[in-house]
Amino acid sequence: MKRIITLTTDFGVSDGYVGAVKGVIKSINPEADITDISHHIPPQDILSAAFCLNTSSPYFPKNTIHVAIVDPGVGGKRKGILVQTEKFSFIGPDNGLFSLVLRGRDIRRQISLENQRYFLNTLSSTFHGRDIFAPVAAYLCLGISPEQFGPRLEKLKSLDLPSPRVSARKISGQIIHVDNFGNLITNITLEDFRMLPNPKIRIGKAMIGKISRTYSDVPAGKLLAYTGSAGYLEIGQNLGNAATLLKVKAGAKVEVLK
Amino acid sequence: MKRIITLTTDFGVSDGYVGAVKGVIKSINPEADITDISHHIPPQDILSAAFCLNTSSPYFPKNTIHVAIVDPGVGGKRKGILVQTEKFSFIGPDNGLFSLVLRGRDIRRQISLENQRYFLNTLSSTFHGRDIFAPVAAYLCLGISPEQFGPRLEKLKSLDLPSPRVSARKISGQIIHVDNFGNLITNITLEDFRMLPNPKIRIGKAMIGKISRTYSDVPAGKLLAYTGSAGYLEIGQNLGNAATLLKVKAGAKVEVLK
Amino acid sequence: MKRIITLTTDFGVSDGYVGAVKGVIKSINPEADITDISHHIPPQDILSAAFCLNTSSPYFPKNTIHVAIVDPGVGGKRKGILVQTEKFSFIGPDNGLFSLVLRGRDIRRQISLENQRYFLNTLSSTFHGRDIFAPVAAYLCLGISPEQFGPRLEKLKSLDLPSPRVSARKISGQIIHVDNFGNLITNITLEDFRMLPNPKIRIGKAMIGKISRTYSDVPAGKLLAYTGSAGYLEIGQNLGNAATLLKVKAGAKVEVLK
Repeated sequence: MKRIITLTTDFGVSDGYVGAVKGVIKSINPEADITDISHHIPPQDILSAAFCLNTSSPYFPKNTIHVAIVDPGVGGKRKGILVQTEKFSFIGPDNGLFSLVLRGRDIRRQISLENQRYFLNTLSSTFHGRDIFAPVAAYLCLGISPEQFGPRLEKLKSLDLPSPRVSARKISGQIIHVDNFGNLITNITLEDFRMLPNPKIRIGKAMIGKISRTYSDVPAGKLLAYTGSAGYLEIGQNLGNAATLLKVKAGAKVEVLK
Repeated sequence: MKRIITLTTDFGVSDGYVGAVKGVIKSINPEADITDISHHIPPQDILSAAFCLNTSSPYFPKNTIHVAIVDPGVGGKRKGILVQTEKFSFIGPDNGLFSLVLRGRDIRRQISLENQRYFLNTLSSTFHGRDIFAPVAAYLCLGISPEQFGPRLEKLKSLDLPSPRVSARKISGQIIHVDNFGNLITNITLEDFRMLPNPKIRIGKAMIGKISRTYSDVPAGKLLAYTGSAGYLEIGQNLGNAATLLKVKAGAKVEVLK
Repeated sequence: MKRIITLTTDFGVSDGYVGAVKGVIKSINPEADITDISHHIPPQDILSAAFCLNTSSPYFPKNTIHVAIVDPGVGGKRKGILVQTEKFSFIGPDNGLFSLVLRGRDIRRQISLENQRYFLNTLSSTFHGRDIFAPVAAYLCLGISPEQFGPRLEKLKSLDLPSPRVSARKISGQIIHVDNFGNLITNITLEDFRMLPNPKIRIGKAMIGKISRTYSDVPAGKLLAYTGSAGYLEIGQNLGNAATLLKVKAGAKVEVLK
């Protein structure tokens, strides 16, 4: 059966780990359409992977199988899961990886991956991407019923995501992601600051006086604040790199003032 | 319709932007054969992208759709374009990205992308790759006629590409690209120095006495000049990295002397 | 004919070289299913590529064509080869790239790629990936018989791989690869130290007292030794990067003591 399997991992691509995962999938289901989302999630950074999935996975067609593997607890007590929403299947370790993308979605099934029949024969303790998640995705793609992979799971692990503190006079949030262009993505949404008529943004030593629409609304080299393509408030520099300019990383404080 | 769509971007692959573009294409046309050319163009470096496209896109089969997105002017006044030659369709921002690959080609159509019917419903001001270029490529692939996407465009923006100065005694050019191996690719072509019977090449403090055929024509660690696989004069180091050895970057001066 | 062609190269993805290879393959055989294993092998590092192939290529389905290009001797005297085992075809330069993955395999055919009919028309001296290996892979995939590509080859080049020295009281090996997580992969296999009942591992200034099963068997931040997913003894740090912690690179000495 031809169906898309996306891959989001922190494997990098120098070691052959990604190749092994692809090979296992293709060996079970040669028709699977494997689509790379990312193999460059910073090692073991579950929040980054959750953010990356949230930015990309919703755009795929119905019935896409999203496999995500950032798995610092591999081989230990954490479970492997298959979660199904109306639109997608998500497969990976139960460590919060899917918290962002599942927020507000109607979860149809959550399964603990325990049926060894659908694992590779020799199971390592350190590479469940190859030995469990890849074959499960390939078999699911072939039409194996979700219930075959293991028992239902009561509760999923979820990430402790930082929420902005909202008061009448200001919103205190933080940078949750710095993108490839040095744009600073905050955890503050458009909804959060709709009540502030003329918002000013404070980040590090800089103060930005208004919300712009796009980069070229300000002169080259100037900082701007805008609503990013994922719906969050972002801070960027026109034709530059805001993270480098402001020397700011994920976790930095940002305030929206009246 | 099964047809190849190539992607060349400066998105990197840590943020999910590439995944979103792929998801949009697959949602509109699940049969599209998406082929990554590069997502590691240096951020906002239009010349690098133009060079990368010129090196790779001509080798694809007829009717391939080449999408390229390096888009510092996103959301501003620059147009989005669809350009068709006898062999290919090119889709991306009108900022010169396609100047190199279109040089000397017979352009059949150049269209300004304006018909919102073929854009995503919610249009951001900062991510036209996802909201405009991806859906237009997917619809074109499905057989929508180019004229449907918008009006004809009079003139395309073009890059101000540095040309070598050629005199009877020397050619003065520059390094336009440093590749992954540290090879220095110049803007001087084989044609340019055919009139110099025994060319010597000056780059930084080094002088190279002749044109070699390939790396192993000189001893390990030695510099050499040769005609590269894209038809330009290149400078490399056998079993080494010429850029590191010479401490040279794109933009550096290079001379071919009699 | 639909058949998988995998690519393992040191090209990086900023230059368009990978795109050119993909374009050539697709132009000859639009049905080829091109699967990236890696384009981030360290430049000219044949051993890394051999290791990457060994970790990934065996997992692919029967009849997969594995193309690997790390080719410091391009254009010189080294031959291009096609090697067939019962399960796979391997195509690339004859420089030892396939030594690890062919170890202990039954080789059915080894061919020297010499028939220019299956090369690109204009042959460069510096990019045989595009001009020879890509078209040969695509034609093989189309059903051209292996013997058509050139004469049989007597002997393949092989890598001088470091073997561990095994004595009754200790095994002296070395780190052959550092992975994306900073895990240190040694050249010592499980077989090698089965005779040592309570092995201790010495690496740099650290001594590790036992073999663990997986990362979380030791507290966060602690070093551990374990049998890795490729069957070799590995040294890692739970929730950390052992290479950074120990300041160790490929080539470093490691000892297993009684």
